[in-house]
Formats: sequence, structure tokens, C-alpha cells
Amino acid sequence: MTEPATDAHRYSPGLEGVIAGETALSFIDGEAGRLLYRGYPIGELVKSGSYAAVAELLWTGEWHADAQLPCLSVSPAVLTALRALPRSAKPMDALRTAVAIWGAENNPSWPATADQARALTASSPSALAAFARIRQGLEPIAPDPSLDLVAGFLYQITGVAPDEESARALDAYFIVGAEHGFNASTFTCRVITSTRADIASAVGGAIGAMKGPLHGGAPSEVVEQIHEVGTPEHAEAWVREAIDNKTRLMGFGHRVYRAYDPRAAALREVAESMTRRPDWLELAIAVEDTALRVLAEKYPDRPLKTNVEFYAAPVLMGVGLTPDLFPATFALARHAGWTAHAIEQGGANRLIRPDVIYTGPAERHLPSA
Amino acid sequence: MTEPATDAHRYSPGLEGVIAGETALSFIDGEAGRLLYRGYPIGELVKSGSYAAVAELLWTGEWHADAQLPCLSVSPAVLTALRALPRSAKPMDALRTAVAIWGAENNPSWPATADQARALTASSPSALAAFARIRQGLEPIAPDPSLDLVAGFLYQITGVAPDEESARALDAYFIVGAEHGFNASTFTCRVITSTRADIASAVGGAIGAMKGPLHGGAPSEVVEQIHEVGTPEHAEAWVREAIDNKTRLMGFGHRVYRAYDPRAAALREVAESMTRRPDWLELAIAVEDTALRVLAEKYPDRPLKTNVEFYAAPVLMGVGLTPDLFPATFALARHAGWTAHAIEQGGANRLIRPDVIYTGPAERHLPSA
Repeated sequence: MTEPATDAHRYSPGLEGVIAGETALSFIDGEAGRLLYRGYPIGELVKSGSYAAVAELLWTGEWHADAQLPCLSVSPAVLTALRALPRSAKPMDALRTAVAIWGAENNPSWPATADQARALTASSPSALAAFARIRQGLEPIAPDPSLDLVAGFLYQITGVAPDEESARALDAYFIVGAEHGFNASTFTCRVITSTRADIASAVGGAIGAMKGPLHGGAPSEVVEQIHEVGTPEHAEAWVREAIDNKTRLMGFGHRVYRAYDPRAAALREVAESMTRRPDWLELAIAVEDTALRVLAEKYPDRPLKTNVEFYAAPVLMGVGLTPDLFPATFALARHAGWTAHAIEQGGANRLIRPDVIYTGPAERHLPSA
Repeated sequence: MTEPATDAHRYSPGLEGVIAGETALSFIDGEAGRLLYRGYPIGELVKSGSYAAVAELLWTGEWHADAQLPCLSVSPAVLTALRALPRSAKPMDALRTAVAIWGAENNPSWPATADQARALTASSPSALAAFARIRQGLEPIAPDPSLDLVAGFLYQITGVAPDEESARALDAYFIVGAEHGFNASTFTCRVITSTRADIASAVGGAIGAMKGPLHGGAPSEVVEQIHEVGTPEHAEAWVREAIDNKTRLMGFGHRVYRAYDPRAAALREVAESMTRRPDWLELAIAVEDTALRVLAEKYPDRPLKTNVEFYAAPVLMGVGLTPDLFPATFALARHAGWTAHAIEQGGANRLIRPDVIYTGPAERHLPSA
């Protein structure tokens, strides 16, 4: 049978190195450890901005340091569905269910708009917080419109407005998690948008992609590692033993970053600036410093630097989130980037549709034909 | 600032002509108008097979002409959520909500399996049928385990087992809609699966992509066109006027097929074999024959042939589905292909993650920094 023409330049399983589009949203320089959102270095954004300001920057291109984005209430239909889920459901699945219903109720038009992005990004934290309470047998709490998105998310989980430093630490996590180029979930979001599907369809698909451990990671493993180490004094012995036993050190090394992950640096800086440094932070710093020293000593040629998960896990744990909420919290943070990519894709659209090589049987016939 | 290296071979916006992977599931020969599922021509599969047999072929690679796949009941949680949706919700959004909850309840493991594919493919028709009734104020109907999937779907919508010819026509539609290479929804499915996300995450994302009119199409426009023509005798005058006025003829031309779409041919054959040929069929045949003759006369060099939508719309209408159910019914049919791709991707996985060119501002600094 006729096989499709093959051409080494065109055959790119996994699409590694294939440039599938353009974006003005973020620039990643893995060699130098730089990450810019619309030109601004991530470290500055974390230092001077809030998640709301960063989300607005991504959506509109404009910087307003005082932007606010309080959480929005979820609809009765979303609450009804979340109550009907098994308590053991994955928070990512609960979040995706809520986004699907948000889409069904709001029927957003195409192309996506900043208003749609605001509404969805501000609704999803309320949905996740509601499910976090429902599965514990607690009543959901309505959002407090005086709180910005990240503090408002914690409030809806705990029923208490978080202290300023906890809110600040989680806000920093949301900022560094907001956007990161054409990763698998963002690419999913753009492929879906390229068919002229709405923003909820795109974000729902992106949540699905982020659910995969090859993308969303396994942040709870960092928590387990920190628990195993136990105390800062034990860090040196634990790290040396782990490296000698070829145990994988969680939170080090990254597909893109060969230098220190600038997101980890920004999170560490926020954490270090806390006036009451929690124990987990002292421990994380001790493990990191030791690990970097021992890794450089043992593998001087390998660029194994701290990645964002290393500080993400202790920050999320530090503000009181259980590890099984980490992936869905990452998804909340990434809402800003996903929705910004939906807007950007819609603004200069072209259907994303690659080709495929057929490797199956040659033409054959059914016994009955 | 440093820009990423650009290379004409690597820059492929839209990924047109980029081969993103391999598949043994289907082979499309657009020039010759051929479509094979695992080597078998689509025409033979429609003639001798059923949707259940074709789905099993896609999932397992084996042909069992007598395979059965009755619809499965949806869970109380799915019904609760569907009842909570606005009656005006798009059926695609209702279907995606149901798939999200199916995933939350079943928590399918990775890699995807044929059993998972069977369970999800057999649940979704029940969910869509339930929503089709709920939005009319009717009670959902439990599936009849003695009916195969397609007949069982119609039964759950109408409350009456369909006559054999209607079931056969819709089954043919499900077969030709089951699979079609790396279209945008299937590609979405594979990108999501490549992160090691579960089959419900993958299918939920695929439904989102199919919701976009650039992919899922606008089948109701074919229905409107047939209504406009009105009678077979009026076809010639209507078609000539449409072509003279540059009105787009719906159901002709296809991105891939330059020859007659083999799916349209298979559907026409089934429709023509019906003993009681319904009026819509006589009308569709008259419109097609006239349109092909006039198009060939006016544009002898352009390969504008009938596409699958031309016969899909009258088949779906003929079995009693309202046009706003067409896209979600297409999604039901494509479940076999999507889930087969999730299985295939999981069997030889590699993360799908392209690169992107940054076109935003050069590095700059915040006013406050």
C-alpha cells in the first residue's frame, strides 16, 4: 500500500524541538535560569506584584500593581455536583467537573476574553475549596469579597482569613505557577482553542493534561522527603546516604532549566523574608544547601539545581494544604496562563493539527466481505 | 535579549505537515478517497460490522463481527449533575460534565486499557440521552441491556427501541465517525495521555476540542440547507442559484479528501439499502447528485466532492435527533477512536511537548523594582 512520504525534518514524535507557535506571554531561558512574563523577570514580579496583578499582566499586557481579583461564588449547580462526588475523588477531577459545569452555565463565546478569564480564574479556587470542605463533611464557605484571590482561597478552605505571611507565601507560589510556555497542559489549551472551542473547554482539557504525573509532577514526594529528613541537623547524613544509594532526590533537576530555577529562587526569597520562619522552611533550606553542595561535589559536571517543586511543596504544606491538594492548587495558579494562552490563540488563530505516520496493517479484507 | 534560535524546518505554526507520532489505528488516503481502520476499508466495516465490532477492532486489533457493547447505566452522581445543569446547556458541555464525573468516580489507572475504553464508551451515550430527556422535563430511562450501543442510545432518548433500519443507519454513522487519525480532538487526547493522565482526562479534553466549529463542524447547517431545498424537484434550481450567488454549499469539500469522502459513500450506501426510504434520503440524494454535476460543470478543476457531513446530517435527523444533539452524538461515535488512541499512546509513551517562539517585549523592569 501507499505509505505517506517520510521526511526526517518532518518526523518529530513528541514534537521536541518543533516550534508549534508564537507567544508574547513568557520567555524561558533555561541555560541562564531566567523566566520573564511579558518581559518582566519572575523575581521582580514575586517581589513587587500579586497574583491578581500578574494575571492581569498576562491577560491584558498591562501592569497594575494594585489589581485585585477576589474569588467568586460557585453556582448551586457546581455545589450540587461536588456534593455528589465520592469523597475520595481526586481534587483535580473535582476541579475539572466544576470547570465543565461553569462552561455549561456560562456558555462563553469565542474568541476568549479577559473578562471570561477573570471570571473562570476567580471561580475555580472557590470550587476547589468547596470540595476540600465537602469531602471532610464540612459546609462550603462563601467567598469574602474583601480578600484577594489567594487569601480568599485559603479562607474558603479553613474558614479563617490567613495571616499575611501565609497569604504572601502562597501568592508567590501562584505567581511562579501562573505561566510557563508551551508545556503539555498549555499546549492542550491552545490545541483546543484552535478549533474555536470556548475557554472552559480549553481549561478543562488543560486540567486533564496537568493531572498526568509527567507534567503535574508528584509534589507530595518532596513532602515525604522533607519528613524523612526530619531535622536540619540530619540533612547532611540523609542527603549523602540518598546519593550513595542512588535514591532520586526530589526537587532537583528540570527538563528546561540547567541553572537554578528562577521560580525556586523567588519562592526561597519570599520564604526567607518571613518574620516567623516556620520549621519546614529551616528544614527545606538546610536540605537544599546540603544537597546542592553534595551534588556539586559528587557530580561536578551535571547541572542538577533546585527546581520549583522543591520550595512549592513546603510552601503549600506551610499554609496548611494537604499534599493531595497540591496538583489542583497548581492548576488554580496556572489558570492565569492557560486563559491568557486561550486569549492569545484566539487573537491570531490557526487550527493546530499535525500529521501522523501509519504503522498498521496494509489493506486487508473482512472474512465476510 | 537572546532570542531562541530559529530554523525554518522547525518552525511549524499549526503543525501542518509535521508528523507528531505513529498510529496503527487508521490510514487516510485523501487523494484516493480511502479510509482504513487497522487495514480494513471503511466501506466493508460499515457493510459487515457494527459499531461494537469496530470499537473492539480499534481497541484490541481483533475482528469479532458479533461483538456486543450494550449501554451502561450512568451513576447517580452523573444524573444529579445533569439535572442541576441549565436546560439550555450545550449537549457537548453536559457530556463533558458526565465524563469528568465518570473519571472522578472511577479514577482509571494509567496506561489506559480496553476495559476502561469499553466502560467509558458505553456510559457516555446513556449520559447524553439522559440529558436530552432531562432538558425536556422527562425522566431518564435506564439502558436496556439487550440492545447494542447505538440502538440502546436511541432507546434511552425516545423510550422506544428503534426500528432495525434506523438503528442500522445510526450504527453506520457511528462506524464512520469512530476514528480519523490525528485530528485536533484526537491529538488533544494523545497530548493529555502523554503526561500519563487517565483516559477520562483525555476524552474530556477531546470533547472540548470537538466542541470547536473548526473541528466538530456545523452539521445543523446541512439540515438547514436540505430544508431550504425542500423537494427533490427543486434541487437543480436551488443548487444553481447557490453556486451563482457564491453561497457555500454545505457538505462538500474536505481538508483531507480530494476524492469522494469514503465515509459519505458508505453512509449513502446504507441509506440507499433501506427498504422504506425516508423523504430526507430522497432529497439528500437529489441534492448531492445535482450539486456534484453542477460543481463539475462550473469548476471542472476543483475537487469539491461530498463529505461525511452531507450524509451524517440527514441520518442523524432521520433517526429523530435534533440538530443541537449532532455534535455530541459525533463525540459519542468518536469515543472508540479517542480511547483507542489513549491505549495506543500509553503503550509507547513519550511526552508531547513542542517548543514556542517568544515574540513579546525584551527584558524590562517593573516601576517599583
